[in-house]
Amino acid sequence: MKRSERLVGMTYYLLEHPQQLVSLPFFTEAYDAAKSSVSEDLGIINQMFQKQGIGELLTVAGAAGGVKFIPFNSQENSESFADLLAKQLEDPERLLPGGYLFMSDLLGDPETIRNIGRLFATHFSDQNVDVIMTVATKGIPLAYAVASFLNVPVVIVRRDPKVTEGSTVSINYVSGSSRKIQTMVLPKRSLQKGANVLIIDDFMKAGGTIDGMKSLLAEFEANVAGIGVLAEAEDEDEERVVQDYVSLLQINNVDIKEKKIEVHRGTIFKS
Amino acid sequence: MKRSERLVGMTYYLLEHPQQLVSLPFFTEAYDAAKSSVSEDLGIINQMFQKQGIGELLTVAGAAGGVKFIPFNSQENSESFADLLAKQLEDPERLLPGGYLFMSDLLGDPETIRNIGRLFATHFSDQNVDVIMTVATKGIPLAYAVASFLNVPVVIVRRDPKVTEGSTVSINYVSGSSRKIQTMVLPKRSLQKGANVLIIDDFMKAGGTIDGMKSLLAEFEANVAGIGVLAEAEDEDEERVVQDYVSLLQINNVDIKEKKIEVHRGTIFKS
Repeated sequence: MKRSERLVGMTYYLLEHPQQLVSLPFFTEAYDAAKSSVSEDLGIINQMFQKQGIGELLTVAGAAGGVKFIPFNSQENSESFADLLAKQLEDPERLLPGGYLFMSDLLGDPETIRNIGRLFATHFSDQNVDVIMTVATKGIPLAYAVASFLNVPVVIVRRDPKVTEGSTVSINYVSGSSRKIQTMVLPKRSLQKGANVLIIDDFMKAGGTIDGMKSLLAEFEANVAGIGVLAEAEDEDEERVVQDYVSLLQINNVDIKEKKIEVHRGTIFKS
Repeated sequence: MKRSERLVGMTYYLLEHPQQLVSLPFFTEAYDAAKSSVSEDLGIINQMFQKQGIGELLTVAGAAGGVKFIPFNSQENSESFADLLAKQLEDPERLLPGGYLFMSDLLGDPETIRNIGRLFATHFSDQNVDVIMTVATKGIPLAYAVASFLNVPVVIVRRDPKVTEGSTVSINYVSGSSRKIQTMVLPKRSLQKGANVLIIDDFMKAGGTIDGMKSLLAEFEANVAGIGVLAEAEDEDEERVVQDYVSLLQINNVDIKEKKIEVHRGTIFKS
């Protein structure tokens, strides 16, 4: 096989298997090529990935070595994406009663979701994440997008147990905004003791839901590897119950009378 | 830029933008290359994509022309993937009370989800799908995976309206298995009249939920472009209320006493 064909095949394979160690013999056998040729190909791919700001190839030396594709978003790509998203959210047509914003259309676009996922995966790539956790419903696509770049599984917390999930562990928590007592459940089989869990959600106000997920993790004796939310909004009436998070966007001023919304880059750009 | 680098960059770009028309001038400008070189590159990429059974490049002629990456799974890849999944589901440890199967671990794996998405996208690629619809919770990752390959948005039907979604349209339907009356809601803004909607869900027994989604589509004057479910199970007590679907897997015999489950390839392989 020619180098040109091999480059297409190897680029595809690496993109489809992020964070996975691929041995050199895997490629030399798949493409019937010499080790030196494959090494050279990997050099070209690595250079091009870095030039385009989409990731890099990590070389692991030794007999059990190989290469690992680590996806990332360059700072420049991340900032321009966040600014574009912020602008879309500032559309006054999004204003809903109670000062909420309609975001379902943006969260329904697979390319937007993938970009958000890449951005969070870049931020948390050195946190040794084992599992991503989110709560039904809107956080789910975001969680899977992050997971696909970090190559880890997703577990979904629900408000109500379902027969198709077997035994569950449940906790009660106080919703930050409404002060109501709510329940969260997670199937017993879904988490190992000691797992490093990254919490991903779409929206945070007071932080009650995220705090509930932290309590649930404590119940499983698992660790919080990080917390990422797409958008955070200020809550005038009370302080946040969660502090150790990053947000992609901050919704700063929602003026229902004047039909104005201000959205800025979130804390993920400040760390 | 050298051809080798260009091939890596173009392969990446096409994979990230499935079903989107990319003009030749876009590539010639991005990589500062002659039109003839870019055409040759596209020929190499197309050949390699087809050889690996992952898709093809469609050439659209004329001034407004260009290339489109159409992802697909070769029949061989699809069958071996379905067989592997079937084998994993036959594990007796998955049996839950009531004859249900624990599938959350498989549905939590982003690579598995992506493969399922590619398979359904291949099947429905010529149905002119405008939107993918699913119902919370487990269908969501599958719907996004299919959407990412078809490059269309996702809308999520819920059991209960949420303040963050604005006005909703709701319907009542009869759950096939439990015969209970249930409710389904969808935000008013989420669907255009006349849209071609592909319904995706994780599991089907009698088909009541899918039938509910069909009624909801009728309410929006939208069309059913197709129905795809990951797994279907037989329901001894009654007939299916939905007939026009394809399944990836069929769960045929669940014997709780003997702790045996039989899972086979679904109807998608018979059409």
